[in-house]
Amino acid sequence: MAKYLFGVDVGGTTVKLGLFTPEGELVDKWEIVTRKEDCGDHIIGDIAESIREEAAKKDIAFADVVGVGIGVPGPVTDDGTVLMAANLGWGERHITSELSEILGVPVKAGNDANVAALGEMWRGGGKGYDDMVAVTLGTGVGGGIIINGKIVCGATGAGGEIGHIHLEDDEPDECGCKGHGCLEQYASATGVVRIAGRKLAESDKPSVLRDKDFSAKDVWDAVKAGDALAVEVAEVYGEYLGKGLAAVANVVNPEIFVIGGGVSRAGQILIDYMKPYYDRYVFPGARGAKFALATLGNDAGIYGSAKLVYDTWKD
Amino acid sequence: MAKYLFGVDVGGTTVKLGLFTPEGELVDKWEIVTRKEDCGDHIIGDIAESIREEAAKKDIAFADVVGVGIGVPGPVTDDGTVLMAANLGWGERHITSELSEILGVPVKAGNDANVAALGEMWRGGGKGYDDMVAVTLGTGVGGGIIINGKIVCGATGAGGEIGHIHLEDDEPDECGCKGHGCLEQYASATGVVRIAGRKLAESDKPSVLRDKDFSAKDVWDAVKAGDALAVEVAEVYGEYLGKGLAAVANVVNPEIFVIGGGVSRAGQILIDYMKPYYDRYVFPGARGAKFALATLGNDAGIYGSAKLVYDTWKD
Repeated sequence: MAKYLFGVDVGGTTVKLGLFTPEGELVDKWEIVTRKEDCGDHIIGDIAESIREEAAKKDIAFADVVGVGIGVPGPVTDDGTVLMAANLGWGERHITSELSEILGVPVKAGNDANVAALGEMWRGGGKGYDDMVAVTLGTGVGGGIIINGKIVCGATGAGGEIGHIHLEDDEPDECGCKGHGCLEQYASATGVVRIAGRKLAESDKPSVLRDKDFSAKDVWDAVKAGDALAVEVAEVYGEYLGKGLAAVANVVNPEIFVIGGGVSRAGQILIDYMKPYYDRYVFPGARGAKFALATLGNDAGIYGSAKLVYDTWKD
Repeated sequence: MAKYLFGVDVGGTTVKLGLFTPEGELVDKWEIVTRKEDCGDHIIGDIAESIREEAAKKDIAFADVVGVGIGVPGPVTDDGTVLMAANLGWGERHITSELSEILGVPVKAGNDANVAALGEMWRGGGKGYDDMVAVTLGTGVGGGIIINGKIVCGATGAGGEIGHIHLEDDEPDECGCKGHGCLEQYASATGVVRIAGRKLAESDKPSVLRDKDFSAKDVWDAVKAGDALAVEVAEVYGEYLGKGLAAVANVVNPEIFVIGGGVSRAGQILIDYMKPYYDRYVFPGARGAKFALATLGNDAGIYGSAKLVYDTWKD
């Protein structure tokens, strides 16, 4: 009989679900609402019910379900314990045993950013590599470290928190982590806008960004159009990102960096501005790392969750 | 029959060898000269001969030898290929198959710094942990990253090159890697002396270090004696080391840092000066890492090499 895997990506607003073949082909995907009321107590039950409905709809017997993988927005230990997921209202929670008891199939859990990294390695921008660093440039900056095909969760679930590498002593603004001068303060979407705001305030140079509200996308569009001030912003952006990724490479020396998240929609130009600084600041012996853009977008999480359970089944 | 392991640590001047039980007890240790002439072509043969002699002396049959582990001063890939070991005169070299063919037992190889890290995890300062970062503060600054009990070699053997994390844009002096502002330029033995030299030149403050040649040990002795200028040096030292280790923790989130190398002989005081800066610059979720001093000294390499082959045998 054909075998199937389910991948689940739990977000603060919606839960994304996917049905996969063991070869990593996405058969179907759908979403349900994340019910956060009552400390998020309904979420696991809702996921179980949705998986049962999908299996019934597709005429899949549970004996043919290899398992369910689940990505959660918070620290998750190697044994699948969620330490906390504030966006869901969860404290410490043993979701793998909870969901496994309801469905009667193996369940594996991981942190959402780490799981998305695994998805990009399996079927996305990092396909074919197994020493990879995924970099998510979104509202914040996240990372996922993969060594020999396995996620590095870290001792307290904080593996890959590369957005909080300290890069700048003279940063007056505070980061979300209460630090000052973290990579995230420059390389996130908010960071791009912040750097641009500073550049605009520092001079009277003309720019399409002047005297209006603008987004990170507007800044990168202006860079592509040759706006001189926006190009200065891109240089600053590239320098901080290059420095941060060089530090990461000096620790784990990956084969490839896969760059995703909203800011990465700017495309190859972002890598082009970062690369010279990366090369300047990385240890020469680690200079050969490849850089690629993520390709799975919002589906990376369901792919990676499915891969979590695939790995256990395959072994 | 009792089983035995050999651990070998190849240095530029001497080769250290150790005979171990599978429980990691050191039965005997000795050294031979590293013959570097003829592009280091005699080294492997000399090691094989020395191991044969030891086995004969101890009446150990080769059928009872689980294998030989070997640490080499250069990048070594996961499959045991030495890419280069300039200090030995070696280019790319398949030493595991060379030595295995001579002795007829399994051979495993690793980079010397990484192997020493593994030794400290097995029987030294990191005993009982399996997510560990070893930091060697010597002439240079090296590192060994261990995740789930295994060394992170990296894609090009440059895993754990934490001494070259860039920390300072305004550093005029050049690092050995041709960069400027690497962790190694501050946290190594040379780094301590360099910082002290600058502090002495900046002011006329009295200090026991003034108007004489001094070593890193002299600086730390002065710190312990309450020398005000030396204490300023320790603060600068602690800040750079704390920043560097915080960056490492934001990538791999280890349970423990084990600090070794010549400078670490200063003892706990070194950790005390570093820790407040580490706490300031690390992501809050990774703040709980422990810090310990290495305990195996120059024997870490033979312990770790033995552990390399122990791991394969045990599996």
